Amino acid sequence: MSTPHAQVVELFVTGDEVLRGTIADTNSATTAAKLYPLGFTVRRITGVMDRGEDIRRALLEISARADWCLVSGGLGPTSDDLTAACAAQAAGVELRLDEPWLAGMRARWAQRRAEPMPLNNERQAWVPEGCELLGNPDGSAPAFALRIDRCHFFFLPGVPREHHRIVDELVIPRMLAALHGTGHTAHRSRVLQCVGIAESKLDELVSPARLAHPKVRFGFRTKFPENHLSLAARAETVAEAESLLAAAEADCRKELGSFIYGQDGVSFAQAIGNLLVARSQTLACAESCTGGLVSQLCTEYAGSSRSFVGAFITYSNDLKERAIGVRHETLVAHGAVSRETALEMAVGAREKSGASWALSITGIAGPDGGSAEKPVGTVFIGIAGPNGVLEARANLFRGDRGQVRTQSAFAALQLLREQLTR
Amino acid sequence: MSTPHAQVVELFVTGDEVLRGTIADTNSATTAAKLYPLGFTVRRITGVMDRGEDIRRALLEISARADWCLVSGGLGPTSDDLTAACAAQAAGVELRLDEPWLAGMRARWAQRRAEPMPLNNERQAWVPEGCELLGNPDGSAPAFALRIDRCHFFFLPGVPREHHRIVDELVIPRMLAALHGTGHTAHRSRVLQCVGIAESKLDELVSPARLAHPKVRFGFRTKFPENHLSLAARAETVAEAESLLAAAEADCRKELGSFIYGQDGVSFAQAIGNLLVARSQTLACAESCTGGLVSQLCTEYAGSSRSFVGAFITYSNDLKERAIGVRHETLVAHGAVSRETALEMAVGAREKSGASWALSITGIAGPDGGSAEKPVGTVFIGIAGPNGVLEARANLFRGDRGQVRTQSAFAALQLLREQLTR
Repeated sequence: MSTPHAQVVELFVTGDEVLRGTIADTNSATTAAKLYPLGFTVRRITGVMDRGEDIRRALLEISARADWCLVSGGLGPTSDDLTAACAAQAAGVELRLDEPWLAGMRARWAQRRAEPMPLNNERQAWVPEGCELLGNPDGSAPAFALRIDRCHFFFLPGVPREHHRIVDELVIPRMLAALHGTGHTAHRSRVLQCVGIAESKLDELVSPARLAHPKVRFGFRTKFPENHLSLAARAETVAEAESLLAAAEADCRKELGSFIYGQDGVSFAQAIGNLLVARSQTLACAESCTGGLVSQLCTEYAGSSRSFVGAFITYSNDLKERAIGVRHETLVAHGAVSRETALEMAVGAREKSGASWALSITGIAGPDGGSAEKPVGTVFIGIAGPNGVLEARANLFRGDRGQVRTQSAFAALQLLREQLTR
Repeated sequence: MSTPHAQVVELFVTGDEVLRGTIADTNSATTAAKLYPLGFTVRRITGVMDRGEDIRRALLEISARADWCLVSGGLGPTSDDLTAACAAQAAGVELRLDEPWLAGMRARWAQRRAEPMPLNNERQAWVPEGCELLGNPDGSAPAFALRIDRCHFFFLPGVPREHHRIVDELVIPRMLAALHGTGHTAHRSRVLQCVGIAESKLDELVSPARLAHPKVRFGFRTKFPENHLSLAARAETVAEAESLLAAAEADCRKELGSFIYGQDGVSFAQAIGNLLVARSQTLACAESCTGGLVSQLCTEYAGSSRSFVGAFITYSNDLKERAIGVRHETLVAHGAVSRETALEMAVGAREKSGASWALSITGIAGPDGGSAEKPVGTVFIGIAGPNGVLEARANLFRGDRGQVRTQSAFAALQLLREQLTR
């Protein structure tokens, strides 16, 4: 078998809801981002409706082109779930009832409901003759693997949570194991998550490391305003893969320095929350133009209450005065969008909350409200903390209302991170 | 020419960043959702990397299958932007320099920058011989239309903002005009946006209306936790299309009643904001487990400051007492997640902010913190308002942390909406 870099991988998505735009196909991007650093580049993504001819036609086209294909969707219990039947028809085999899977489905059903399982659901236990049943840790539609012509197909449920777990636990290990002959069965990967650096700059900074570590695969993923670098090493043994990865990671970390805030799925706010917990410190916010976005980011992970106390969303000037004691004279003299107001918001939020640190944000997110002196995108970000820390910075962000708000929230968190890592 | 229902439409997306999972393809879902109610069902979506063979192969395959194809991406100035060249090669024609477009690019450049335009950018003014230049109101890569074999291709930039405007203003009108022979050149559409109703129930409720109005196309789009119904009518004249649409819309509104909160792109929070502005009333919030999500929703549209005053994100118990005067005894006796605390949060937020209405949310978003008595998903939602309005409701939401938070925020806004529309 050839090296994985030469393997042709395709993704195939079925479903009226995708082709009608009822939902967007996000499974493909997530899966492609996992496969790429392992050396499996997706050559084509195909989507068709729940229409037998279209599904069979695409399967047979792919079967002559690709070495691997991950199929998403159409394994449910309803009449428009055609994928298992189409897979059998394309392969020229019959469907068979998998009795153990059916028994398992019935047992799961009985645990949760009083009424008998609908007959329709039994459809999900019919799979093509000769397939390898992969199962489904989280659902009743079993994934299965089936070879058609030269291509190894994996048929997976489309529900994202089920889909992604099966890709991780059942598909990727089989793809890597099938490459045993190349001697690259062990793999280790790492995602280095960065803020404050554009993708092109990230690419440029790590390119010497990429040249120096040809056995490690480099990939990029944008999650505005963050950019992530993924590294993946394959080797004969786990120890060798770990050593290849560690050497490349060390070089990347040297180049990227403090642009890296975390790794392997931690969020930016969570990484900062961890720094606060390590110091037994807490955070509060006073947000105006971001309308609670920093608070959202600070509370979206479990356990956030250990470091996040809360926030004052002082959207009106009146509430800036009432809730956190910004002085009326300050608002009159300098305006709500000013360094002076940002400073008083930070001081007030810290005092009123009793938190160790307070961040403040006041600005013009647009599209209205800008002026020649303070155009849309003007945002003042303040911080107040222990040992007399108190400062505010002016920013001018580009983009639409949502982009200005997102950049403001990240800049505020970054201001705190600088204090916590200096 | 046959009726549009029989027309084969395909979408074709190019770009390494999509196939590597660096970004997800969201253009396709947006475009498919626009085309479907007009009678153009997308039969296939194809994505390939920036690789000449793959682009030419896909174009030629599509050229034999489809009547229409919208191509996204690869029209930029860099060396991996291959689409215009591949289009010419697939069609068997040469590229030609469009001098007027180049002159326009140079003029635009000179208005904004001092240095001369890089030579690379001139690439964007080269288009296939025989194409129709469509242009680009928002960028330097011109869209163009080109027939290859039996298929009308539209080549469009991938940047979402540019892409969507060109689809709306330059592509859809041409597709509809080309169907002139069928006598359906005028079209009118409407999106009815619903909350509190599942897609299957929505489908069921409007199916009599769908049968009664066969000339109007019904489509669905899920935007969790909302479900949207789109209606589109085509006719010989605008007046006739409007009359068809109005009749179907009236029947749908009769069935869906107050499930419909708005239409044609307004957000749920914005629809409620409009109700508040009409009464010259204002809103404040006290949020615990949602961590500012209601505030986010209430401030993400321009002009939100006319009705939204601000919020207290009282994530800690201490801040519930300090910021909005929840009584210590209440927290001790009933816990932070209780009807009593929700009521005091709403009253306190209303008093401290001076707003007409206050919403409060306190609950267990998970994954930790649940108990037998108050499992994960238990959320109390309170409201305080003019004329002594004061109540709190218990909810039990299913799903992960993010889904519990989203449902909580929508349920709170819905509680206010009930008060404003009774």
